[in-house]
Amino acid sequence: MGSGRILVAQGGGPTAVINQSLVGVALEARRFRDVTRVYGALHGVRGIVDENFVDLTQETSHNLELVAATPSSALGSTRDKPDANYCAEIFNVLRAHEIEHFFYIGGNDSSDTVRIVSEQAQAAGYPLRAIHIPKTIDNDLVGSDHTPGYPSAARFVAQAFAGANLDNAALPGVYVGVVMGRHAGFLTAAAALGKKFPDDGPHLIYLPERVFSLEAFLADVKATYERHGRCVIAVSEGIHDAGGAPIATLLADSVERDAHGNVQLSGTGALADLLCDEIKAKLGIKRVRGDTFGYLQRSFIGCVSDVDQREAREVGEKAVQYAFWGDRDGSVAIRRTGFYSADYALLPLSDVAGRTRVMEDEFIAPSGTDVTDAFRLYLRPLLGAGMPDAFRLRCARVEKILRP
Amino acid sequence: MGSGRILVAQGGGPTAVINQSLVGVALEARRFRDVTRVYGALHGVRGIVDENFVDLTQETSHNLELVAATPSSALGSTRDKPDANYCAEIFNVLRAHEIEHFFYIGGNDSSDTVRIVSEQAQAAGYPLRAIHIPKTIDNDLVGSDHTPGYPSAARFVAQAFAGANLDNAALPGVYVGVVMGRHAGFLTAAAALGKKFPDDGPHLIYLPERVFSLEAFLADVKATYERHGRCVIAVSEGIHDAGGAPIATLLADSVERDAHGNVQLSGTGALADLLCDEIKAKLGIKRVRGDTFGYLQRSFIGCVSDVDQREAREVGEKAVQYAFWGDRDGSVAIRRTGFYSADYALLPLSDVAGRTRVMEDEFIAPSGTDVTDAFRLYLRPLLGAGMPDAFRLRCARVEKILRP
Repeated sequence: MGSGRILVAQGGGPTAVINQSLVGVALEARRFRDVTRVYGALHGVRGIVDENFVDLTQETSHNLELVAATPSSALGSTRDKPDANYCAEIFNVLRAHEIEHFFYIGGNDSSDTVRIVSEQAQAAGYPLRAIHIPKTIDNDLVGSDHTPGYPSAARFVAQAFAGANLDNAALPGVYVGVVMGRHAGFLTAAAALGKKFPDDGPHLIYLPERVFSLEAFLADVKATYERHGRCVIAVSEGIHDAGGAPIATLLADSVERDAHGNVQLSGTGALADLLCDEIKAKLGIKRVRGDTFGYLQRSFIGCVSDVDQREAREVGEKAVQYAFWGDRDGSVAIRRTGFYSADYALLPLSDVAGRTRVMEDEFIAPSGTDVTDAFRLYLRPLLGAGMPDAFRLRCARVEKILRP
Repeated sequence: MGSGRILVAQGGGPTAVINQSLVGVALEARRFRDVTRVYGALHGVRGIVDENFVDLTQETSHNLELVAATPSSALGSTRDKPDANYCAEIFNVLRAHEIEHFFYIGGNDSSDTVRIVSEQAQAAGYPLRAIHIPKTIDNDLVGSDHTPGYPSAARFVAQAFAGANLDNAALPGVYVGVVMGRHAGFLTAAAALGKKFPDDGPHLIYLPERVFSLEAFLADVKATYERHGRCVIAVSEGIHDAGGAPIATLLADSVERDAHGNVQLSGTGALADLLCDEIKAKLGIKRVRGDTFGYLQRSFIGCVSDVDQREAREVGEKAVQYAFWGDRDGSVAIRRTGFYSADYALLPLSDVAGRTRVMEDEFIAPSGTDVTDAFRLYLRPLLGAGMPDAFRLRCARVEKILRP
């Protein structure tokens, strides 16, 4: 296997556990006698083209463990999407450094990057083994039970709604929390796991898997508010009208796109503000508050699922094993084998790349504004140990004297 | 002491530890043989007028401990501000239930409520002992080293910025995080405690204690971006122009006020969006993202300072002791006695009520966009044990071959 140098990089949006996978690669690779050096490219494939490599072999295992427990992409990330010319530059650099193994930790778009690099390598006759290591808070990779990064982000969302529900109960009104998720509602649906008592919020959940109608939304909010005297709502940033146009972009003066053609949805509070304004104007409810969870849900330090940490480490380790003991490129997938236990598989890149998983129908309640018990059973074990829990006073009422 | 029934209630915005104070009152009161019942009023003073009482004496100590560890106001809250008529209704109800001890857990406005109730009771000849128990994430009560609720919210803000900084380092650009705080910048300043390495963000901090100028802001951001290739900014929702007008309300079509005359600043992402739009338009930086931390910073379940929990419990306990062993109404204050240790005092209500503490000059750097080491020393011990920490790869660079 040539020089024995291997390369790992990180692409797309960071997660709470993406460095676990990086460290999984770095530590597992050193157990292979054929591996002499583990290089990291800074800022994803961009770092390959720019020849910006660091030598992870020189890291101490102690520091690697500390980095593994740190959120966000320690090597830096990119949203670059390689084309044939970009790939030619990649192979030039890999050839110069005698690198024939490439591990890319990323989500949907990054899996497509690995597919492109893998296909271009074959076309160019460059001897490359390319493995995609999954991560995405969106949970939208096809072929996996779930994706590393999702459980920790889901935990953040569940804890956020558990708290927002308590706050809303103390000072009643309407609360709208906007959650990340372009096409898949998995992260927004996690809000349901913040609910404990039957009258707790979130009372309504709006997913991109269903068409969003402002009129139906207002009717739902009105009915909930009349029933509970308050209403907590989880909304995906990706909600769209019947024509598929995101509600968030219907408002924007200009639309920002990345190299993969994705419209920028996060990093603005406009959708929450629009929905709040509509509720105030059309329903005449005074106390209406909107939050956009934004980057906190993927980067907040100190909110992580231990299950997610372990699995993110394992997909990194398995990727190295597949690369050296297998005979093909591919994407590492998580399979659920018990309640709860997981195992791993290597899928063909073409089965994963460029495809988007959305929430299965069995996970969405017929009303379209709630999740099913099947979803609760699916997500709960992923959230990990030590989920904080909300408790209530039993509230033994004192008999009224003046107003019996 | 009459019936032996005492009353406790919660006012204003919830915090992560306000129920610790409630439970401190409930449990400590039962150690006094004169106390027969501990009543809680639902939704603050509103619950007194409406005669909505629950009997906390019937709660089990186990459940009280679970509620103590739950964020937000377990009894519900209100922003009602009593006047003379409102107080007369309060005394009618207290008289009917033979209640002569009133404990009100709240912030700035709630301390004023206790002062009004205390003065009106004296004027009306109603024999009432009224004690204000402090809580506010704003840390703006005069006479206290700090206020319960602030350390936990500060911890959330510090953790949020520690994570946002890592995210911004992975995908460089400008990040604006808007933090609660109407007049006092303490909570926004806590962002500085999320910074570890010299080039970490937040690189700029904008506090309501200093006049905000959009031009100076853009110049600061430009300089930071040119220096670090990225910029993380903490902004208080309360920033205002030289005339005192909040920047947030300069944009709003209409302004919402509560009974205390406070303009509603939270619950909208407009300020972050405005600042981001200005940066994009004037500085030509493409990747600009804004988050408004909103209600998460005071309600997120699972982010709490153990120091804050203990002190919130103690102010509740001390309030009961002051009420039964003291001879006057007052507001419980925290005094710092060591690094780090605290003790408590009972201040006259008039020393606290209706007054607002802002950040002392010694806490704000001469630049006006950073805090001092004095502030870091002030806040660090309050954040409590187990603060998550961010680590970096040491990044041993690999020598370039193609582009040396």
